[in-house]
Amino acid sequence: MSGNSFGKLFTVTTFGESHGPAIGCVIDGCPPGLALSEADIQPELDRRKPGTSRHVTQRQESDTVEILSGVYQGVTTGTPIALLIRNEDQRSKDYGNIAESFRPGHADYAYWHKYGVRDPRGGGRSSARLTAPVVGAAAIAKKWLAQQYGTTFKGCMSQLGEIAVPFQSWEHVHANPFFAASSDADLIASMEEAMDQLRRDGDSIGARIEVVAQNVPVGLGQPIYDKLDADIAYAMMGINAVKGVEIGAGFASVAQKGTQHGDELTPEGFIGNNAGGVLGGISTGQDITVSIAIKPTSSIRTPRRSIDKEGKPVMVETFGRHDPCVGIRATPIAEAMLALVLIDHALMHRAQCGDVSVQTPKLK
Amino acid sequence: MSGNSFGKLFTVTTFGESHGPAIGCVIDGCPPGLALSEADIQPELDRRKPGTSRHVTQRQESDTVEILSGVYQGVTTGTPIALLIRNEDQRSKDYGNIAESFRPGHADYAYWHKYGVRDPRGGGRSSARLTAPVVGAAAIAKKWLAQQYGTTFKGCMSQLGEIAVPFQSWEHVHANPFFAASSDADLIASMEEAMDQLRRDGDSIGARIEVVAQNVPVGLGQPIYDKLDADIAYAMMGINAVKGVEIGAGFASVAQKGTQHGDELTPEGFIGNNAGGVLGGISTGQDITVSIAIKPTSSIRTPRRSIDKEGKPVMVETFGRHDPCVGIRATPIAEAMLALVLIDHALMHRAQCGDVSVQTPKLK
Amino acid sequence: MSGNSFGKLFTVTTFGESHGPAIGCVIDGCPPGLALSEADIQPELDRRKPGTSRHVTQRQESDTVEILSGVYQGVTTGTPIALLIRNEDQRSKDYGNIAESFRPGHADYAYWHKYGVRDPRGGGRSSARLTAPVVGAAAIAKKWLAQQYGTTFKGCMSQLGEIAVPFQSWEHVHANPFFAASSDADLIASMEEAMDQLRRDGDSIGARIEVVAQNVPVGLGQPIYDKLDADIAYAMMGINAVKGVEIGAGFASVAQKGTQHGDELTPEGFIGNNAGGVLGGISTGQDITVSIAIKPTSSIRTPRRSIDKEGKPVMVETFGRHDPCVGIRATPIAEAMLALVLIDHALMHRAQCGDVSVQTPKLK
Amino acid sequence: MSGNSFGKLFTVTTFGESHGPAIGCVIDGCPPGLALSEADIQPELDRRKPGTSRHVTQRQESDTVEILSGVYQGVTTGTPIALLIRNEDQRSKDYGNIAESFRPGHADYAYWHKYGVRDPRGGGRSSARLTAPVVGAAAIAKKWLAQQYGTTFKGCMSQLGEIAVPFQSWEHVHANPFFAASSDADLIASMEEAMDQLRRDGDSIGARIEVVAQNVPVGLGQPIYDKLDADIAYAMMGINAVKGVEIGAGFASVAQKGTQHGDELTPEGFIGNNAGGVLGGISTGQDITVSIAIKPTSSIRTPRRSIDKEGKPVMVETFGRHDPCVGIRATPIAEAMLALVLIDHALMHRAQCGDVSVQTPKLK
Repeated sequence: MSGNSFGKLFTVTTFGESHGPAIGCVIDGCPPGLALSEADIQPELDRRKPGTSRHVTQRQESDTVEILSGVYQGVTTGTPIALLIRNEDQRSKDYGNIAESFRPGHADYAYWHKYGVRDPRGGGRSSARLTAPVVGAAAIAKKWLAQQYGTTFKGCMSQLGEIAVPFQSWEHVHANPFFAASSDADLIASMEEAMDQLRRDGDSIGARIEVVAQNVPVGLGQPIYDKLDADIAYAMMGINAVKGVEIGAGFASVAQKGTQHGDELTPEGFIGNNAGGVLGGISTGQDITVSIAIKPTSSIRTPRRSIDKEGKPVMVETFGRHDPCVGIRATPIAEAMLALVLIDHALMHRAQCGDVSVQTPKLK
Repeated sequence: MSGNSFGKLFTVTTFGESHGPAIGCVIDGCPPGLALSEADIQPELDRRKPGTSRHVTQRQESDTVEILSGVYQGVTTGTPIALLIRNEDQRSKDYGNIAESFRPGHADYAYWHKYGVRDPRGGGRSSARLTAPVVGAAAIAKKWLAQQYGTTFKGCMSQLGEIAVPFQSWEHVHANPFFAASSDADLIASMEEAMDQLRRDGDSIGARIEVVAQNVPVGLGQPIYDKLDADIAYAMMGINAVKGVEIGAGFASVAQKGTQHGDELTPEGFIGNNAGGVLGGISTGQDITVSIAIKPTSSIRTPRRSIDKEGKPVMVETFGRHDPCVGIRATPIAEAMLALVLIDHALMHRAQCGDVSVQTPKLK
Repeated sequence: MSGNSFGKLFTVTTFGESHGPAIGCVIDGCPPGLALSEADIQPELDRRKPGTSRHVTQRQESDTVEILSGVYQGVTTGTPIALLIRNEDQRSKDYGNIAESFRPGHADYAYWHKYGVRDPRGGGRSSARLTAPVVGAAAIAKKWLAQQYGTTFKGCMSQLGEIAVPFQSWEHVHANPFFAASSDADLIASMEEAMDQLRRDGDSIGARIEVVAQNVPVGLGQPIYDKLDADIAYAMMGINAVKGVEIGAGFASVAQKGTQHGDELTPEGFIGNNAGGVLGGISTGQDITVSIAIKPTSSIRTPRRSIDKEGKPVMVETFGRHDPCVGIRATPIAEAMLALVLIDHALMHRAQCGDVSVQTPKLK
Repeated sequence: MSGNSFGKLFTVTTFGESHGPAIGCVIDGCPPGLALSEADIQPELDRRKPGTSRHVTQRQESDTVEILSGVYQGVTTGTPIALLIRNEDQRSKDYGNIAESFRPGHADYAYWHKYGVRDPRGGGRSSARLTAPVVGAAAIAKKWLAQQYGTTFKGCMSQLGEIAVPFQSWEHVHANPFFAASSDADLIASMEEAMDQLRRDGDSIGARIEVVAQNVPVGLGQPIYDKLDADIAYAMMGINAVKGVEIGAGFASVAQKGTQHGDELTPEGFIGNNAGGVLGGISTGQDITVSIAIKPTSSIRTPRRSIDKEGKPVMVETFGRHDPCVGIRATPIAEAMLALVLIDHALMHRAQCGDVSVQTPKLK
């Protein structure tokens, strides 16, 4: 209820702050009988973790996960799975100078007015570091969904600032530091140059990320409020720095006509996917396609105007180790959120309609 | 849990189908002591109801609301408020021909696979008619928010298909049938012509809607998952036909730099509102600004390819009375959803931090 | 969240006051495909309704239920089922004299301090009349549970004031006005005489009710907080006038030894049922046995000391039409609550462990 | 949703198993600004912990708590508070012989059928050891309630098997190993002798516990389903081994008349407390009084009949270190559950009715 749990039946409750002793989560509702160990979770955490290229924050965190409960003899028991990640690199002195003032674009001002107290070390609770436990939880969700329905998740960056990244193939995503689905060496080079220039300028940039779920069963989602696409929008907009969410054709729908947008059906399947895999809030079995806008990193090495707690003008400059484009590390996070939405709806559907009705799509 | 309730503390549970005997909702959590009668609710329903211009569906519904409970001697008692709206115009014969097949762009296919049974009359539960009880519930929310904090809601259409509608002033919104914030007679005429042409063509078109909440208290929203913007995205994407949601700068953030996007603060207030009134998931006291994409109406008088329940190819043509642009009537609905999100977070904030901490903004 | 909904997956949200225009509920989460009409619900409402013997309130209410939604062509569609019961006999003048003071044993004092406003007509929201919609909702739950697992529900009065009613057979329950599982004519006569005397004295009396669920699947219930017995205790203690709840051996467990209490198992089944069908919060497949204590009716025709809103002493006497023993009509209500708990846990178990794992007991 | 969280606004999610690496909880919804350190929590854990007298289990656990999050510079920040308790004494070999069979009176049979997999080490998730994190969480709740309203909690054992313990004074509770509110040395000696005899016999015994909350604000509780007494019943019945719950007069209400039970009011206050501090599900400001029945420990050193997973008959004898009367350590647990219920309702009331309406009682 107080906003630190995600999901109703596969419920992930996270805890921790950027520079506290530990971060982690409790996963309640994981079905019993799933083979599980840290080795299933660590690779997903490694995809998200900082310090993997020069274009992301150089904070050093091994993000080593420990399973504290819910697994016995290598199998989930149906009871809560607690994941613990100790914080290692807590150079909070980097942040000392902003404890009394509010960094533009950050949660500082809002937290201060809400709670009357604020943990300023690395953004405290509002840090994107808190996506790590979620990625860990989603690794479990992904494994279960893959086993049950063959569902898979993919994601890529489709735009970095002004640079559009045309989709070529998913296979390229892990061959470059940007999650670009492209093998165009010149394009990648231009992205690297743009990032290097930003770092020199002490500035940052936004990005657009696409994520897709494939082999999704038909029938996931609720009719009015917990529509599958509504829950996806909720999940995505809740990721740090996200300012926009699209499903399927998204904002392009505005200029479309009904004869163009509504995907016709044939005995072989839908002939298009403007819907993005969701009609009336319920999955159709087509690919779920989502696009999100990520704002430029707010922490930049350029002095900016702000005020302190007394309302007096100050200049704020952030010296910490920050991603010049938080979008770069956002792909595994967006995949994770999509997986958490889908497993929750899969369990809900099973409650409502029983096991047998959960099926992989008949049509493509 | 099963997706027919909205909100956690100001909870609206709706019921009904497009052509059943009645639609309505139960509102649980309305604070006691609010003066309330049907006269507070009916005007909002009238803004949304069909048949108000030639550009919207000609279905005849008075949408007369009856309060069944929760009010005693003209004042809310803190117990559930039930709203009942009897359906009047139930010409379900218009829909008979599509009972056995799936209309492209509609929920038919997904509902059928989910539930194994489907009410085909006017789309049943998936009809946009079900937004009426929500608009009724939100009228109560709006009244309470206005009294407590002076919060107000405004909305307009900013794009109709290819036609952009530059914002002039809120005062124009009710002077034309499109909720356009413009007094440009030529522009309005071009919109009317576009709509008339669509009707002649048996086609439909998408739209973009903007909604704004003003005088929002600082501090509404939760840190990680029930972020205010996440809940707004959830609320908006859950409106029928919505395919995209933006907060503040939205997708424009992708091409922005950090020096441009992060709104600086001065003792007089924020110097911009790229944030759209939300930082770190929590309201800043600035205007909450939201933009949504609405797809073209799926029900059109043009024959389209589909399949029937047996998977055999059929042609589907919809003859009912439909809005050629569902976006036209979406403005009061989007305002309503925004109001429901805000009252829920206002009550939650009161639970967490007490009454005195809920304040109108100090800065603009 | 605000306390007017019961159940997480089969969620019943009630509305209405004793003397308002109507009472009713919305049932969200009923599985699709269940044959359903008012004829399935009305008989359960008739078992509970007032005026069926001289020992209960003579208020005249037909309690005629109307299904407003969620059923199409005689079958549930998986969407919310709204039940509406119009109030007919609203002689609120009977209650006029207690609008300004607090009746001893009633919710008046607590409501007034909580909400600052109170509907005094017949107790408003706190009236036991509000159990009617719940009984209606539970009729649907009972039908589904019977079809899925063969689960059945039985209840009887086991004590009326000082008069114990030894259990003989369920078949006698409907052959007397007290839901006594006894054919002992002298015992029934003594109960009638006790009730007549109470009416003459303007007094009231308590009662003990037993309810049993048979053919319950193994495995319903959650490990720590939503234990099946915890949810049963919650459901029962929430019934108007209930002051105590026991599962299985109940308070007799206090004086038992471990060698006596713990039900041994043999290949043929458990050799006793001190557990009441629940171990570790999870159903064992044995009968679920529950006993509840119901306090004497607070509304009596004997003047009693109280205070008014200003804190001044007053005498309060209730002249309305009241049950001298609310326990008499409590049996169908207690059965209803038990059914609602079980269907909720059955759906939850299906979510967690899938369809096939929900089984009828292997052992008795 | 999956039964490992308690509370809606002050939500405690626990994790861990008796013999896993750790147990703990995440507390979401603690108001910001509360001074808090481990020193506030440890004393409550110490009251509950094993090994404090020869009459309880000799398992050695320091139950040392670590706060992982939610506190900055000694003050709660409004974000989740994670508590971690490492398990130290995990002599799971004691339990090896019961991995394949079901101990009578234990959760083994039910868990096995529910999940198809079971952690048999010390009862796994079903162990009463899991009450430790709850007691820790409740220490925080108690501190906040004390500061806000002066609310305090007390508890005692009122019956041990056949031995009734007449209440003398709360001051005696900590002067004997039984939480007896008595200074009667003979009585205490008889209890000690009874316990010693049980240990010699390899048997166990039940107990009755009373808990009281004093200085409770008027107005806590919801009208229909989340009644304060219903939530108390839920909380108490959810404690391991509890089989019955009473509020106020409890089962004695059955034989009471209305003229006797309904507590009259005078300008000085209520003249009795049969209600147990709750009317219509809402607190009246009187003491909340609760009584619970605790069954005899199921783990005893006497061979008992059972079956194994294949349904074949076996004899089961438990050799571990067990409390011969689990009721002895139940008092702090019952207090803890009562505190968690009250803080949740206090926050809920604040959401609904605002800060100023939460008041300490005007009447006693």
